[in-house]
Amino acid sequence: MGQAASVTAALLVIGDEILSGRTPDQNIIYMADYLTKIGIDLREARVVPDVPAEIVAAVNALRCRYDYLFTTGGIGPTHDDITADAVAAALGVEISEDPRAIKLLLERIKPEDLNAARRRMARIPHGAALVGNKISAAPGFWIDNVIVLAGVPAIMQAMLDDVAPKLATGLPMIVETVAAGSLPEGAYAAALGEIANASPELTIGSYPAFWEGGFHNEIVVRGKDKTKVAAAAAAIRAMLSRLTKASA
Amino acid sequence: MGQAASVTAALLVIGDEILSGRTPDQNIIYMADYLTKIGIDLREARVVPDVPAEIVAAVNALRCRYDYLFTTGGIGPTHDDITADAVAAALGVEISEDPRAIKLLLERIKPEDLNAARRRMARIPHGAALVGNKISAAPGFWIDNVIVLAGVPAIMQAMLDDVAPKLATGLPMIVETVAAGSLPEGAYAAALGEIANASPELTIGSYPAFWEGGFHNEIVVRGKDKTKVAAAAAAIRAMLSRLTKASA
Repeated sequence: MGQAASVTAALLVIGDEILSGRTPDQNIIYMADYLTKIGIDLREARVVPDVPAEIVAAVNALRCRYDYLFTTGGIGPTHDDITADAVAAALGVEISEDPRAIKLLLERIKPEDLNAARRRMARIPHGAALVGNKISAAPGFWIDNVIVLAGVPAIMQAMLDDVAPKLATGLPMIVETVAAGSLPEGAYAAALGEIANASPELTIGSYPAFWEGGFHNEIVVRGKDKTKVAAAAAAIRAMLSRLTKASA
Repeated sequence: MGQAASVTAALLVIGDEILSGRTPDQNIIYMADYLTKIGIDLREARVVPDVPAEIVAAVNALRCRYDYLFTTGGIGPTHDDITADAVAAALGVEISEDPRAIKLLLERIKPEDLNAARRRMARIPHGAALVGNKISAAPGFWIDNVIVLAGVPAIMQAMLDDVAPKLATGLPMIVETVAAGSLPEGAYAAALGEIANASPELTIGSYPAFWEGGFHNEIVVRGKDKTKVAAAAAAIRAMLSRLTKASA
């Protein structure tokens, strides 16, 4: 709940279906946008297959580097849902059926339908808090700085809403976008580089987009200090205006 | 050009704009689908920001583990385009302006417009082959097993078409999808797990999708042996049919 200058996160997307091209990932962009808006900087994302050793290695690499690690995918009832066991292995903790999770499942599943496969969704690493959601019965969980969410976008989003109020957040990122119109990147790159060099505490990016028969570039200024972001954006607008007149 | 049983690849997506939520990545799904279809298994994807040390670390981690490493993003003319220098640093090779790349640029850019910023797009690590494309002047490049492509999806796709005929490929992945209809995952998970256990050389995944007011699951069988994939898919169809009758 603190307000550090910067709170960082990584996202680990778990699932063969993303790497095989079957399913377009929707969680990276959603998480990136959501975390940015609440003041958490997403610094890295990875996609790994449903292979225990790959998940364990990625969880350990990422949880040690960032304030939070979010995972999506692999917490359903089928044999390919191995995220909870992999996270427990990565953290070196036991895992077993959690009575709190069984209770949540029973709110939506009849006792006679709570078979062995569905009970697997109640396997939770010891010491974890549960993460609920309004859409499905099975919970995610939160242990240390690792937050394990569903892969189905609507359920992942509901779980993120559940944990968001409990996350520590940093200063929000201030973003200003300057339209560069049809001025090509190569025409303003040198002048933009000078502005970027003069403000190392800001992140300034130039993003080309191509339409049929033309392009339309945008320059994005990002930083935590509103005054500095505004000053850099103003400098960029003045620079673009000067170059546009010069090329007219 | 060989036909190994398995040729593997990783994808490194480079760009602040993906992690900040500004730009939805379109390259992971495109690359995943494309590589799968030509017989290359995409085993991992990562997204890193425009930070030299992050790019260098990811390039070295991934190029050593997989047959190919593709990168997208960061090869334009602006100050935030640092991929070529980072790849050269990762591989420990020199980088300088490449006369072949200058020639390509001059096919689209007038000599008087070839300023210092645009010349940066001709900086190519020593020993690399160029990767052309039909859309823009600036080339990607291929050095060792690292293939550096543009981030703009249309240009990345054109570059991928350029390199694809030169890639070694493995046996193509055979994929069969079985619709499980509205039978819930928890009802078939145990039986599906038995089928998966009996065919460890196959990858069998169960993917729930939620519609308004219901769900529709799919089971996907993937493997390199057509007969085994077909046999597992048939076993799954028989299992689903048995369970559907039992629950009717």
